[in-house]
Amino acid sequence: MSANPEHLSKTAAVDAAAIEPFPNSRKIYVEGSRPDLRVPMREISQADTHTDAGVEKNPAIWVYDTSGPYTDPNERIDIRKGLPPLRAAWIDERHDSESLPQASSEYGRSRLTDPKLAEVRFDLTPRPRRAKAGMNVTQMHYARNGVVTPEMEYIAIRENLKIQEYRDASLRQQHPGTSFGACIPKEITPQFVREEVARGRAIIPANINHPESEPMIIGRNFLAKVNANIGNSAVTSSIEEEVEKMTWATRWGADTVMDLSTGKNIHETREWIIRNSPVPIGTVPIYQALEKVDGKAEELTWEIFRDTLIEQAEQGVDYFTVHAGVRLGFIPLTANRVTGIVSRGGSIMAKWCLAHHTESFLYTYFEEMCELMKHYDVAFSLGDGLRPGSIADANDEAQFAELKTIGELTQIAWKHDVQVMIEGPGHIPIHRIKENVDKELEDCFEAPFYTLGPLVTDIAPGYDHITSAIGAAMIGWYGTAMLCYVTPKEHLGLPNKQDVKDGIIAYKIAAHAADLGKGHPAAQIRDNALSKARFEFRWSDQFNLSLDPDTAREFHDETLPKEGHKAAHFCSMCGPHFCSMKITQDVRDYAKQKGIHNVQLAVDQGLKEKAKEFKEQGSEIYRQI
Amino acid sequence: MSANPEHLSKTAAVDAAAIEPFPNSRKIYVEGSRPDLRVPMREISQADTHTDAGVEKNPAIWVYDTSGPYTDPNERIDIRKGLPPLRAAWIDERHDSESLPQASSEYGRSRLTDPKLAEVRFDLTPRPRRAKAGMNVTQMHYARNGVVTPEMEYIAIRENLKIQEYRDASLRQQHPGTSFGACIPKEITPQFVREEVARGRAIIPANINHPESEPMIIGRNFLAKVNANIGNSAVTSSIEEEVEKMTWATRWGADTVMDLSTGKNIHETREWIIRNSPVPIGTVPIYQALEKVDGKAEELTWEIFRDTLIEQAEQGVDYFTVHAGVRLGFIPLTANRVTGIVSRGGSIMAKWCLAHHTESFLYTYFEEMCELMKHYDVAFSLGDGLRPGSIADANDEAQFAELKTIGELTQIAWKHDVQVMIEGPGHIPIHRIKENVDKELEDCFEAPFYTLGPLVTDIAPGYDHITSAIGAAMIGWYGTAMLCYVTPKEHLGLPNKQDVKDGIIAYKIAAHAADLGKGHPAAQIRDNALSKARFEFRWSDQFNLSLDPDTAREFHDETLPKEGHKAAHFCSMCGPHFCSMKITQDVRDYAKQKGIHNVQLAVDQGLKEKAKEFKEQGSEIYRQI
Repeated sequence: MSANPEHLSKTAAVDAAAIEPFPNSRKIYVEGSRPDLRVPMREISQADTHTDAGVEKNPAIWVYDTSGPYTDPNERIDIRKGLPPLRAAWIDERHDSESLPQASSEYGRSRLTDPKLAEVRFDLTPRPRRAKAGMNVTQMHYARNGVVTPEMEYIAIRENLKIQEYRDASLRQQHPGTSFGACIPKEITPQFVREEVARGRAIIPANINHPESEPMIIGRNFLAKVNANIGNSAVTSSIEEEVEKMTWATRWGADTVMDLSTGKNIHETREWIIRNSPVPIGTVPIYQALEKVDGKAEELTWEIFRDTLIEQAEQGVDYFTVHAGVRLGFIPLTANRVTGIVSRGGSIMAKWCLAHHTESFLYTYFEEMCELMKHYDVAFSLGDGLRPGSIADANDEAQFAELKTIGELTQIAWKHDVQVMIEGPGHIPIHRIKENVDKELEDCFEAPFYTLGPLVTDIAPGYDHITSAIGAAMIGWYGTAMLCYVTPKEHLGLPNKQDVKDGIIAYKIAAHAADLGKGHPAAQIRDNALSKARFEFRWSDQFNLSLDPDTAREFHDETLPKEGHKAAHFCSMCGPHFCSMKITQDVRDYAKQKGIHNVQLAVDQGLKEKAKEFKEQGSEIYRQI
Repeated sequence: MSANPEHLSKTAAVDAAAIEPFPNSRKIYVEGSRPDLRVPMREISQADTHTDAGVEKNPAIWVYDTSGPYTDPNERIDIRKGLPPLRAAWIDERHDSESLPQASSEYGRSRLTDPKLAEVRFDLTPRPRRAKAGMNVTQMHYARNGVVTPEMEYIAIRENLKIQEYRDASLRQQHPGTSFGACIPKEITPQFVREEVARGRAIIPANINHPESEPMIIGRNFLAKVNANIGNSAVTSSIEEEVEKMTWATRWGADTVMDLSTGKNIHETREWIIRNSPVPIGTVPIYQALEKVDGKAEELTWEIFRDTLIEQAEQGVDYFTVHAGVRLGFIPLTANRVTGIVSRGGSIMAKWCLAHHTESFLYTYFEEMCELMKHYDVAFSLGDGLRPGSIADANDEAQFAELKTIGELTQIAWKHDVQVMIEGPGHIPIHRIKENVDKELEDCFEAPFYTLGPLVTDIAPGYDHITSAIGAAMIGWYGTAMLCYVTPKEHLGLPNKQDVKDGIIAYKIAAHAADLGKGHPAAQIRDNALSKARFEFRWSDQFNLSLDPDTAREFHDETLPKEGHKAAHFCSMCGPHFCSMKITQDVRDYAKQKGIHNVQLAVDQGLKEKAKEFKEQGSEIYRQI
């Protein structure tokens, strides 16, 4: 952080790379039942296909858009002011919360009045909201009372199966006979969203103090989501860098962002991030609580932790990772592990438990936490403090003992209508991944699963976005609702912007592969459109439809840089003679001419012709096998 | 290629990066039953662990080594002379083959005498070997006749379960109670290798004209293997670059290399590659045959193709991809696909079939091919010319019709004791991957499966090493024997050296994840060693044990560059206070002190203590949930 406030106000301008529009794309909004319910999507337009039969129009493709107002050229972005509070009116209309005169957390107030923090502080006076006495403001509470909130309607539109189904049908028309997925879409209606939230199978992280966030849902009957971790540590990086990483991560598709800062100025860093984030923000409050006791785990108390929860809830954190399943009795179960306890939160609590020889206060005060969180609608992300840190430790007694406890805690949270998701590992060999999902669904009553990877081997530090994308795709397919990304720097250092992007893209791949695997009917539209563009040598469309148009174009241009090559019916891989796609055009003409549509008929036809030729020519001898 | 022969002789020196030893590693040789049977491995030594109890020695870890003599500092490498012919004596001793006075292929001879090629030609007079009249020199033929060849013994040592098992036991001793894989190793004996080859469930690609290659096996009861494709095209790259890519690919772990060159000087490029390759080389002969008819598929003939097979067999190609399953009758089945026929070989043959309205000569002359290939021991890689090129086309009628035909051809090859593996797709969504393996095992009688990826989505050009590593890990786990890598440039351009490395590492990850998933007992040793090093903050050991030590070290050094940090008990992720691994040491001490080893006991113990404390202190109220 620069020591000069002048510098901050200048450099705190938004990162130019985050607001650049995607190629051939425009931001569109689908309006819901009220004019202030406008769901953003990215529309990618395509070129026409030119055939002998004439010009064929290719439909514009709509894709889910997590980038927020940053990619809307009509929005004026000023990160010193934060994003517009799009949910403010909805929250206000419910009349179940009120603006407080000041922050309830003593620590939070002290940060606001400390003159030394003036230069790093986000410069708007916060008026935190809290539920009125006796009220419960969680989306789960509304859902269970039969109320469809604007957030739920927003999500139904955003998951947009109906729209996509229409587009799918239009593609199917162009390619009769092609299979576009066997699954009939279950229509995602606002009612369906409500039902899933009511039964705890999905959550909508939506703190009333984060009205800037665009509603999204985490549940296995919806699109698989991706979380990106950012955050500075005592060793490296600044507030600006973290805000930049957040906008960068959401640009490339992060559905939620966790701020895992452990360095100085955690409170201020978080404020900047939340005020500028179009996606829900998660934290691990124990990290900050530990800062408050100078890193001495044994000095942590429920009171300090509680004040931290309130401080963060009133800033607008949407979900808290809480390692309340790390019970004293489970800790010795990790003693013979190859890698012991690798969760930071888990090891902090283990240290505390051992120092005091008593049960974790997160466990004993769990119900108080629920009371508190329902006043802001902060969701639990029940942390897996005993997750395995190596293949050797996968699926062991400690891990599953904790999972069972987390399931018990889930029931308690649900008693208070507090939303819950469940964190999962970690490092798991591929043949033991499914057991994790099966056990989670059973022990935690289908609360959404949220896993870190898992990494399917330990031997590739520097490439753990790949080792873990393999596990993530599989566990997503088996039913995990959100995938926490892993960057190439995992185990080695803190990610920079390039690492964040690499992690996100690897995880967008994993999440999308999972959606295809689950038979999500809308997921394949983009694959089909891109493949059709590829087949027809519409190079620019291929790039534009891809997860990372910049890299696709750049790689292509390394060998064929000229603009004319974007229209070429060949590429550097095979050169002009060998192009398989070109040859396939002949096949289509042949098939059309022959009118052949099934195997046996085709084979018979082929043999008959061959026999005829054989007779006619009488010259070529071949052996029929 | 430079026009100056002087330049060639200078720059044709081996790539320095390929011969640099790996950090803390040395080349070792395990000797078999005869002194000229020396199986190379890489030994990675580790630092000691310092504990309060004293110094603990960590064993050196042996890893499978594909890099050949290049990484042996005692070998003198001169790529103008080629590698030493380590199998020459074994081949000679069998007395079933003879050296020919000259190449049998007319084309091959013409390349040797053309003065214009002097400067690009590999400069040793080839004396190709061929089976004596009536003899069959395939490893399958020996296996079926009960002969254990030196190649088979070499492989049994190389797959080295017994050695690894010993090391595993030593690790287990250090961590009692830790699960190191439930599977009891089936001992890989030379006899077992012979049996698997005899029944066609594994192949040993080992052309008698490629005596430089170090024997390896492809079969699902062995370690999963990785193939790297290299090769220039009409548009880009030179011979030196291709040789460099080959040494580079084997350095990072390629088990076989396919030379897919389609540009000028295919013959000479291949000669340089084979003479310098420690791993089997595969090709797609139809590419070169097509060059010979100036790219006009319809002018291909069996005679031209046959001469190409002989030309390449006498150079030493170890396996041929032949798209003999693309029958005329199947071609119309691809007409309604989104991406038609995407295999180059498949589309060439489709074009030929359509032009002549007759059955593919690869199909009709298949038995002649077998006759020819058994004289050199070239294995078939039966190509999937109709593989799907997009998610939309996965597992369709055309694909499976071809697979069935390939199964019939397998039986014919086996009649001649010609080794066979089966190529597989391509682009497959994750829920449809397993069907590919199941069908292949059934339709092709368990011949080893060799798949390209599969890519699990189409939407990430620029990242297809990742989209396909997901599919590769899964299909390897299900039973695929060899995984053909995909580089980040797939669909966009030809891979450069960095892309080759990125592709290989992604596939080493996938193959290793598959080996872990299959319960391969030796596979986890490296994971366990690396994880133990990680846990004990032996940073250098963590780097050295990884698939890519250079990148791991470089990433770490970005944030903590000082050499002293390699001994630090923290890292940039969490800083000194938060280190979870450090805290875990306390847990071990606690567990040791308490002597607690199972959950219930642990929980009871915890509660009892808590109750005691509660009574003693009388001050802290907590709620039991």
